[in-house]
Amino acid sequence: MATKKNKRRGIKIPHIKKPIIHNEAPGTVTYTGKKENVATKVEIIDYSKDRYHRVDSENIEDAFSFESSEHITWININGLNNTKEIERLGEYYNLHPLIQEDIVSTNQRPKMDEYPEYLYIVFKMLHYNENGDFINEHVSMVMGKDYVTTFQEADGDVWDGLRDRLENAKGRVRNAGADYLMFALLDAIVDNYFSVIETLSSKIEFIEDQLFDDDIEEDITQDIQILKKEILRIRRAVVPLREVINRLEKIDSDLIESKTQNYIRDLYDHIIQVSESVDIYREMIWGLMDMYMTTISNKMNEVMKVLTIMASIFIPLTFMAGIYGMNFEYIPELQFKYGYFVLWGAMILVFFGLLYYFKRKKWL
Amino acid sequence: MATKKNKRRGIKIPHIKKPIIHNEAPGTVTYTGKKENVATKVEIIDYSKDRYHRVDSENIEDAFSFESSEHITWININGLNNTKEIERLGEYYNLHPLIQEDIVSTNQRPKMDEYPEYLYIVFKMLHYNENGDFINEHVSMVMGKDYVTTFQEADGDVWDGLRDRLENAKGRVRNAGADYLMFALLDAIVDNYFSVIETLSSKIEFIEDQLFDDDIEEDITQDIQILKKEILRIRRAVVPLREVINRLEKIDSDLIESKTQNYIRDLYDHIIQVSESVDIYREMIWGLMDMYMTTISNKMNEVMKVLTIMASIFIPLTFMAGIYGMNFEYIPELQFKYGYFVLWGAMILVFFGLLYYFKRKKWL
Amino acid sequence: MATKKNKRRGIKIPHIKKPIIHNEAPGTVTYTGKKENVATKVEIIDYSKDRYHRVDSENIEDAFSFESSEHITWININGLNNTKEIERLGEYYNLHPLIQEDIVSTNQRPKMDEYPEYLYIVFKMLHYNENGDFINEHVSMVMGKDYVTTFQEADGDVWDGLRDRLENAKGRVRNAGADYLMFALLDAIVDNYFSVIETLSSKIEFIEDQLFDDDIEEDITQDIQILKKEILRIRRAVVPLREVINRLEKIDSDLIESKTQNYIRDLYDHIIQVSESVDIYREMIWGLMDMYMTTISNKMNEVMKVLTIMASIFIPLTFMAGIYGMNFEYIPELQFKYGYFVLWGAMILVFFGLLYYFKRKKWL
Amino acid sequence: MATKKNKRRGIKIPHIKKPIIHNEAPGTVTYTGKKENVATKVEIIDYSKDRYHRVDSENIEDAFSFESSEHITWININGLNNTKEIERLGEYYNLHPLIQEDIVSTNQRPKMDEYPEYLYIVFKMLHYNENGDFINEHVSMVMGKDYVTTFQEADGDVWDGLRDRLENAKGRVRNAGADYLMFALLDAIVDNYFSVIETLSSKIEFIEDQLFDDDIEEDITQDIQILKKEILRIRRAVVPLREVINRLEKIDSDLIESKTQNYIRDLYDHIIQVSESVDIYREMIWGLMDMYMTTISNKMNEVMKVLTIMASIFIPLTFMAGIYGMNFEYIPELQFKYGYFVLWGAMILVFFGLLYYFKRKKWL
Amino acid sequence: MATKKNKRRGIKIPHIKKPIIHNEAPGTVTYTGKKENVATKVEIIDYSKDRYHRVDSENIEDAFSFESSEHITWININGLNNTKEIERLGEYYNLHPLIQEDIVSTNQRPKMDEYPEYLYIVFKMLHYNENGDFINEHVSMVMGKDYVTTFQEADGDVWDGLRDRLENAKGRVRNAGADYLMFALLDAIVDNYFSVIETLSSKIEFIEDQLFDDDIEEDITQDIQILKKEILRIRRAVVPLREVINRLEKIDSDLIESKTQNYIRDLYDHIIQVSESVDIYREMIWGLMDMYMTTISNKMNEVMKVLTIMASIFIPLTFMAGIYGMNFEYIPELQFKYGYFVLWGAMILVFFGLLYYFKRKKWL
Repeated sequence: MATKKNKRRGIKIPHIKKPIIHNEAPGTVTYTGKKENVATKVEIIDYSKDRYHRVDSENIEDAFSFESSEHITWININGLNNTKEIERLGEYYNLHPLIQEDIVSTNQRPKMDEYPEYLYIVFKMLHYNENGDFINEHVSMVMGKDYVTTFQEADGDVWDGLRDRLENAKGRVRNAGADYLMFALLDAIVDNYFSVIETLSSKIEFIEDQLFDDDIEEDITQDIQILKKEILRIRRAVVPLREVINRLEKIDSDLIESKTQNYIRDLYDHIIQVSESVDIYREMIWGLMDMYMTTISNKMNEVMKVLTIMASIFIPLTFMAGIYGMNFEYIPELQFKYGYFVLWGAMILVFFGLLYYFKRKKWL
Repeated sequence: MATKKNKRRGIKIPHIKKPIIHNEAPGTVTYTGKKENVATKVEIIDYSKDRYHRVDSENIEDAFSFESSEHITWININGLNNTKEIERLGEYYNLHPLIQEDIVSTNQRPKMDEYPEYLYIVFKMLHYNENGDFINEHVSMVMGKDYVTTFQEADGDVWDGLRDRLENAKGRVRNAGADYLMFALLDAIVDNYFSVIETLSSKIEFIEDQLFDDDIEEDITQDIQILKKEILRIRRAVVPLREVINRLEKIDSDLIESKTQNYIRDLYDHIIQVSESVDIYREMIWGLMDMYMTTISNKMNEVMKVLTIMASIFIPLTFMAGIYGMNFEYIPELQFKYGYFVLWGAMILVFFGLLYYFKRKKWL
Repeated sequence: MATKKNKRRGIKIPHIKKPIIHNEAPGTVTYTGKKENVATKVEIIDYSKDRYHRVDSENIEDAFSFESSEHITWININGLNNTKEIERLGEYYNLHPLIQEDIVSTNQRPKMDEYPEYLYIVFKMLHYNENGDFINEHVSMVMGKDYVTTFQEADGDVWDGLRDRLENAKGRVRNAGADYLMFALLDAIVDNYFSVIETLSSKIEFIEDQLFDDDIEEDITQDIQILKKEILRIRRAVVPLREVINRLEKIDSDLIESKTQNYIRDLYDHIIQVSESVDIYREMIWGLMDMYMTTISNKMNEVMKVLTIMASIFIPLTFMAGIYGMNFEYIPELQFKYGYFVLWGAMILVFFGLLYYFKRKKWL
Repeated sequence: MATKKNKRRGIKIPHIKKPIIHNEAPGTVTYTGKKENVATKVEIIDYSKDRYHRVDSENIEDAFSFESSEHITWININGLNNTKEIERLGEYYNLHPLIQEDIVSTNQRPKMDEYPEYLYIVFKMLHYNENGDFINEHVSMVMGKDYVTTFQEADGDVWDGLRDRLENAKGRVRNAGADYLMFALLDAIVDNYFSVIETLSSKIEFIEDQLFDDDIEEDITQDIQILKKEILRIRRAVVPLREVINRLEKIDSDLIESKTQNYIRDLYDHIIQVSESVDIYREMIWGLMDMYMTTISNKMNEVMKVLTIMASIFIPLTFMAGIYGMNFEYIPELQFKYGYFVLWGAMILVFFGLLYYFKRKKWL
Repeated sequence: MATKKNKRRGIKIPHIKKPIIHNEAPGTVTYTGKKENVATKVEIIDYSKDRYHRVDSENIEDAFSFESSEHITWININGLNNTKEIERLGEYYNLHPLIQEDIVSTNQRPKMDEYPEYLYIVFKMLHYNENGDFINEHVSMVMGKDYVTTFQEADGDVWDGLRDRLENAKGRVRNAGADYLMFALLDAIVDNYFSVIETLSSKIEFIEDQLFDDDIEEDITQDIQILKKEILRIRRAVVPLREVINRLEKIDSDLIESKTQNYIRDLYDHIIQVSESVDIYREMIWGLMDMYMTTISNKMNEVMKVLTIMASIFIPLTFMAGIYGMNFEYIPELQFKYGYFVLWGAMILVFFGLLYYFKRKKWL
């Protein structure tokens, strides 16, 4: 019945036919993102208190040679479209097929899966690229006893500070285990969320300034709509990650040392702070629409006042002129010598009287 | 008192008399859907690691012959209006009368009932048909030790991918038990929700594009209202199913093997993702109304400006012409030789002065 | 301070003095409803598997004679204003004074009180009467080991289907105990909620149709307001009853057999479905106001366009005519032979030029 | 930055400098209400099953003489500005300094503090005074083994019904202990909330009637704002008291007998009912603003229609008259004998044509 | 795609490029606030029941000399930009590096960290400065067995009342331990929140008064926006502190004596009261926008009425005058002797007729 009416009036949403997807077997490793022609790059950093060794390669098997060492190994893989390589690695590390699927499923929401030998964490790396477009990169991490493997869609990340600390043995990271490395990687991700939110906050202020500016003529509905979508996507990355970190804080696993727990607790504090900011900015973006509506109404009010003043003043005057434009044989005033000037006087009186009236109404 | 006023003003909602329904005994098997003349079709797939056998029949009793085998049997029944057949099957499998009632009650919300010998799950299959109408099909599933029975209202479903995997022994399904089959069926349902939501998202974007388009003249309230109803119906299918899958993940039943639990956990992740998307799109659909309101106000503003400019320019000029149309005996300006041209000059001055004024106000 | 301003401007809400109620002792049995002159009618149905006996009386003591039998007795009392009779019955069945008070307190919200020997349940029977007015009847139920007593404000209820099944031994009810009777009574109540909600849904669709109809001129704020109040009252009946049934499902009482629990679980499913529908319709009713606002603005837009078009076309033309109505001695055009026709040509040009302009702006 | 803009445009909220309060030591007994010159009045009711004795005094020490009796003593103190007296009493009954502070802190929200020898409960007594102003009186209660002390800001309360039942030995109160007295006092408070809410509901209906009335010209924003504030204050009194009574129901204290628990459970039912009503009326008050907005827009629509009809009819007619007011030498129509009458005919045609057009558009 | 549209229409939010922050090692002590050139000031108050000693210094090491005493020591440090000093102190008291980081991270939200030897609490000190700007100062507190150290960004705080009580041995503070000092410090903070909220409430009332005032012409959107931001910042300080105090109430630590718990429970009451007020004022600020919208619409209505009345009265009169300004050879009325006066009569009739019509419509 609703559909019938739809045909009768209003626009007709064209029928958008999506093919019924014949779903694949669970555990099928299919890359679902957009960066499809990226050559896989492997970055291997092997370190201990006294040692730092870095290898860059395009061959995922180079990573396996480090495994038997007593050092901590961070294997960072850029490029997820070569699903074959992911499967090879997954086999080597004995990763569950569902995990292999999630590593390349860019729509997978942030989550943590606990396995006896490793933890698997999915999260999102957010940033604005050089065109100001909002980028949401799917990243996964597998942490085992002495290694951390990270999987990114493409080159470029927020971990350069950490790389620097690893290379130059700054901070605590070289003295600690794979669990601390995992924490440090997540910490950099969360720190970067603060910077993304700050950019968003600048955009909100920019629109607010436009709204408070009398001269704005453009329709900013669209801009507000874009902000709405961005904040919703940020929220979608942050809220489940908050749950992940909360679980991480309370986890009972041999893989995480108790002294790292303090750091994870601190990280949880940070992600809560991010998610509170997200909620506040969300509320403010929604409020922008109301503000815009008010602005439009105020402008309309101003337009109406100009019309009302012009019409209210000149319509009566035109009527007065019309009277003495009539052709009656006997209109006594027309014969008065100074009739014309008297009428002008009357008109000027009416003119200023109405001006005064509008002045008192504060319309001028 | 409210009713009294209702009579006094406004439209009168006509009294819509629904007959008081004399409720039926619980456990009465009555089909409540709209597909009433569908011939029951029974599809039986019997398989094990090494074997695949498929029978299509119109006789529900054909299914019973497979029961004693050591294989897994999937019995898919299309058409629920032959309640007699459902009762026969229910008797054979010893289904509780309330379950038999729920199989054919198309209004039943998604739920799971646990019985010692089987699990009963209700869910909804959603899709847009070829006319773009939103279809919400009631589906139930009974899973026992070595069989799964599914009940659909009509032909056509989202399980062709699964049928293919069964027939060609792709993936894990032929090696696993009835619990994995149940999972695979639900997995296909949830995967399809993603595609439904994507269609909805395209519709939202279509309306947004209309709103951002200056030329829109149609009233799109109705279209937004239809979207609202669709998202509410999707939500009604998704949210209770999420609870069902959550319980399924934690269930303590002999019917479900522990290694299937990993897959169900993954499924739970997916349905959470669906339900988050539903919430986001819901919020966006609600936001469309505000956007439309703003668009209307912007248009009205533009109309008002045209009126104000035309009236404000020509009303004073008409007044000036009116002055010299008067018939006073003595109007000195009328005798001036170039009076007429001087007046034209004044009029052109007023005309451009007002144009400049509106230009500066950015109304032009 | 707020009050001071209230006096200064706006309407003055008159001081509505409600007498301070000197509250009565708890347990005082006072009827608070509106059906005050209803003669108490007692309907007694005494049944077992093999037996069915019905007595209609106006004397509440007739009910007591059935008590010692081995059968199940359903005593249905219509009319609550004879509080004396209620007290007599309460004494006989040893009901707590607070229960006696609640039986006749029509404002009491749905709830369940557990006592060792009986359960006491309050709920609301909802229906639209023949005038379309929404009726909310206060009903209570006491269930003991072998009896159920129901208390209604007036004649007429939703239990005729149940009476039929009792008399003709349809379904399970004659073979089951008082707990199943209690379930069957509640089941009929909840089933009827579906019908009430369907009526409401038809009303919402009726108003929606009005809104989508171009010709609507009436102010439908009031109609929406009435719907709002109705849905709020339905919600008030449904939500606490949902909690009651939830508790009933989990209760640990000798009064309820385990096989009845399955039925109560099903009932719980139904009331959840009702309460979800209530939430959805509530949201839609609230949305009607926004839709109405949009409709008003669209209409205003149309009015403004007509005004703008008429004024923008004829004001300049009138000015042109005004020019050549002036009485200057020397206006060269006036002497041109075809001046008049040339002017007409110019006017027609302006006329169609403006028409074309408005056409291109899609205002026509 | 926000502040900078504030200076640039809009109104400037003047800087409201509140002195930084140098907070007092916790436990300092300072009266914070407005009834500062109230003489303390002490009302002592001492009763048992067989005995009723009442003393009115202005001396708080009179209360102490009753303490050693075996009777229940209710000491009601009106007037809190004599903090010295409160401290004396606090010392006598050994009340914690923080309780003494709370008794006279009128901003203290409802709460319960459990001490081994007594319970301390804070709540609010609400009523509309004879001017229709909303009054929110701070009341505390200390209940010990055989006494209840109540503290009110001023004379006049909702306990006259209870006093009557005490004096005339109606109901259960004279046979029960201090815990039942405490219950009865709270019960009267909650009963009175119903009456306050009913007054509010009448006010809402009054405003609704105004809104549905075509003639309303006043701005009722202010009246709605006052209602908003009243409902928020009621909510602030009700919601924490609900928690208090909930805790009271579950408390494990020697001071409360188990048979009083039934009554407290009933009281909890009532306060839930109050708080549900508060939520409903809150929603309705918020809805009034939307209704008012719609009403304004409807009125504007009507104004616009009158303008559009008048202008659209007479502007073209004036143009037609203007044509034949021109002074061209050769205007053939002017010489036609019945030209004037033919024009009148044309004008009448245009007039009725436009009338018909507006009629068909339902603007008339 | 959204971005593409953004380029097509509307304003273009300029690309705001924030540098990708290379995050620092956790535990790095970096001051993030704005008060960067503040000289560190150290205030040491050492007291016991009988003793009070105060030292003001600029050297943080002066604090260490008090440590071995049996007295309670309050060390208050103003100025956080000298991170070196903070690190020295942190080393002396053995504070975890993450705590040292949080002391100077002004964005850190309120929280409590429990360590065996001390509690660490972060909170915000709020006030309006002499320009009316809202100030949000980051404060931390470390409480050990016999000392409390507080860290503020700058001079000036809300603890002068407490200093006075310490110096003059008022109240309980000199007799109690470090836990009571900690309580007293927090109590002063929370008390001050009440004063901040009161200021905000005055601002809301100021804007309300402006809205109810007919003469307001300024756009107050901006002022409401500023209030929104202030309440959000207050909320951000209050809500997490409420959780902190709740945990403090339930904490099981040797550092807090049981008799101090009563005071903390009272403090918890206060912070709940603050946070309820915050929620209420938040709702009221959001409501202001609606009120403003209504006010604008009312004004527009008034403008429209003036226009409609002026135009509706004078346009028909002008038409009448236009009729008799026509130059037809034969217009019989023009020859009537008193035609002119008769017309005047008709015009006056129309004038008053329309006036009466508008009067009856209550537009005058």
